[in-house]
Amino acid sequence: MQTSEPSIGVDIGGTKILAALVDASGAVTSQIHRPTPARDVAATERAIVGLVRELGDGDLRCPVGVGAAGWMNRDSSRVLFSPHLSWRDEPVRDRLEGQLGQPVTLVNDADAAGWAEYRFGAARGVNDVVCLTLGTGIGGSIILGGEVHRGNSGIAGEFGHQVIVPGGHRCVCGNRGCWEQYASGNALGRDGAELVRSKSPIAHNLREACNDDPEAVTGALVTELAANGDLACRDLVEEMGQWLGLGISNLVSVLDPGMVVIGGGLGSAQTELLAVAEAHYRRTLSGRGYRPFAQVCRAQLGSLAGLIGAADLARASASAA
Amino acid sequence: MQTSEPSIGVDIGGTKILAALVDASGAVTSQIHRPTPARDVAATERAIVGLVRELGDGDLRCPVGVGAAGWMNRDSSRVLFSPHLSWRDEPVRDRLEGQLGQPVTLVNDADAAGWAEYRFGAARGVNDVVCLTLGTGIGGSIILGGEVHRGNSGIAGEFGHQVIVPGGHRCVCGNRGCWEQYASGNALGRDGAELVRSKSPIAHNLREACNDDPEAVTGALVTELAANGDLACRDLVEEMGQWLGLGISNLVSVLDPGMVVIGGGLGSAQTELLAVAEAHYRRTLSGRGYRPFAQVCRAQLGSLAGLIGAADLARASASAA
Repeated sequence: MQTSEPSIGVDIGGTKILAALVDASGAVTSQIHRPTPARDVAATERAIVGLVRELGDGDLRCPVGVGAAGWMNRDSSRVLFSPHLSWRDEPVRDRLEGQLGQPVTLVNDADAAGWAEYRFGAARGVNDVVCLTLGTGIGGSIILGGEVHRGNSGIAGEFGHQVIVPGGHRCVCGNRGCWEQYASGNALGRDGAELVRSKSPIAHNLREACNDDPEAVTGALVTELAANGDLACRDLVEEMGQWLGLGISNLVSVLDPGMVVIGGGLGSAQTELLAVAEAHYRRTLSGRGYRPFAQVCRAQLGSLAGLIGAADLARASASAA
Repeated sequence: MQTSEPSIGVDIGGTKILAALVDASGAVTSQIHRPTPARDVAATERAIVGLVRELGDGDLRCPVGVGAAGWMNRDSSRVLFSPHLSWRDEPVRDRLEGQLGQPVTLVNDADAAGWAEYRFGAARGVNDVVCLTLGTGIGGSIILGGEVHRGNSGIAGEFGHQVIVPGGHRCVCGNRGCWEQYASGNALGRDGAELVRSKSPIAHNLREACNDDPEAVTGALVTELAANGDLACRDLVEEMGQWLGLGISNLVSVLDPGMVVIGGGLGSAQTELLAVAEAHYRRTLSGRGYRPFAQVCRAQLGSLAGLIGAADLARASASAA
C-alpha cells in the first residue's frame, strides 16, 4: 500500500455523513455528503459504503477511515455505544470491511479531530496534546508521544463527564455536575433559556431574539448575540469560559500536556470564550508560578478535522500493516 | 552495566530519608535511614550521598535512583519545586552526580511508587495504570504502555489538585476545592477536628480520644477509631470514601486505565475506605453499563514502594544508557 496515495475519511455526524479524499499532506481534494439515517444501523452503514464507493469511483483501493461519535473497543472493531446513532456493541468495522472488501479504520470522532490538529493543525510538533471538541457537548482526545491515547478499553478522553460540580446540573449521561453541563453549547442554551424564563430586563435582546420562547434559545443564538455585544449574553459566555478554564486546569494537572487545542463548532466561534477560558485557566492552575503553562490554542482545521484525522489514521494503519 | 546487579533506591520523606539495595526482582536486600534535614538543601544532599556511600560500602557502582515529593523538570535534572523540602528550581541531579561520581536518576516519589506497583506489585501485567498515593495529600502517577507518563514539563499526575468542589475548602496549593481537600488524611483530620469543635454528642469517642482538643485530631486518629467501630468516625471515613470514588471516576473518564491502584499510608490502612470508594466509583462512572470498569486495587508494596520504584527506574535508565 503506497502511503502517498490519497486516503478516504468519513465523518458521521448527527445530521449528515461527510466523506472526502484526503492527501498525505492532510489536504481535502474532494468531498461529498449524505444525510445521516441516524436511527437505522443498516441504512447508516449503506450510506457510508455508498459514499466510499462514490469517492473511489468504483475501484479505488485507498485506505478508509471512519470517524463517529461513540466508543470503539480496544481493537477498534466494534462500536460499544454511540450517542447519536443506534450502534450498541456492534461489529461495525467487520461489516463495513465485508461490504467494501477492504480494510477500514474505525475511530472516535474526537480522537480523529485531535489527531488531525496534531498532524496538520494547531498542535504540529507538540509532543503531548489534549484536544477538546466543544460543540453541544465536549469531545476529547489525548495525543501522547505521537500516538492517540485510547486507554485500556479504547474510550479514554471522556473529559466532558468529569464531575466538577457535585450535585449540579443533570447530564445526559445520567450523572450530575459533568463538565459539559457547564462548558458547552447545550449549557449556554440552557442558561440562556433560564434567563428568558426569568423575564429579567437584562435579557431583553435575548427575549426579543427568541420571541420570549425559552425553547428557542440555543447556544448558537447566545453566542451570536454575545458577539454582537449583548451584555447579558456576554455574561453567559464569560461564565461558561470560566468553567471551561477550570476544567482545562484539571486536565493540565492530570496530564501536563504541551498544548490544549480547542475546536468544535463553539470552540472555533469568534467569541471571547477562549480568551476568558485561558485567563481563568492561568488563574486556577495548581502550582502556577512553579511550572510552565501549557499553551491554549484554537483548532485550525475547522469542521473538516474529523475527516482529515480519520483519513490520516487509516493511512498510518495501512502503512503499518 | 549489568542489570542483574542490585540498584540503590532512595526515598526522601518529610521526616526521614530511606535508602536500600534493591535487586532485579524488586526485593529489598538491605535498608538504612537518616533524619531529613528538611530546610537545609546542602545537608539533605549530604545525607543522600552519605546513605548511598554507606550502602555501597565505599566502592559499589550500582545505579542510584532518588525519589522525592516534588516536581522534576522534563529531563529529570532539576527539582522545580518540592513541598516538604527547600528545593526551588535546583540542579539536584547534577550536584548528586558530582558528589557521587556516578549517574543518578531523579524521580517524583509518586511516580516511583506507581512504577514499583506496575513492575512488582498490584498492577503487574496491566497496560495502563493510574496509581494514587493517599496520605496527608494525594500523590499520583500514570503508567501508560509500560512507561511513566511524565508529561510535557515532567509534572503530570497532580490528581490531588483537580478542583472537584468549586469554591470549596482552601487547599495548601492556594486554590479552593482540590480533590485532596476531600480525600486525604488531612481532610479526614480537618473534618474530625470540626466535629470535635461542634461538641456534638455523636463525637463522644473522638472527643475523649483527643481530650476535646481539635488540634490533636489527625486523619490517623479518625481512621483508628473508625476501624474500632466508632460510628461518627466511620461516617467521616465513608464520606471521604465517596469523594475518593468520585475523583477516581473522573480519572477513569479521562484516562481509561486498566487498573487504579491505591497506596500510601491511608490507602493501605485496613479500613472500609477502599470498599466505599470503589462502590461510589462504580455508581458514578459516566457511561457505566456500556463500558468495562477499571479495577480498583490496594497497593501491595507498602511504604517501600517509592524506594523500590526509584531503584528499578535507575536500573532501567542504566540499561538504556
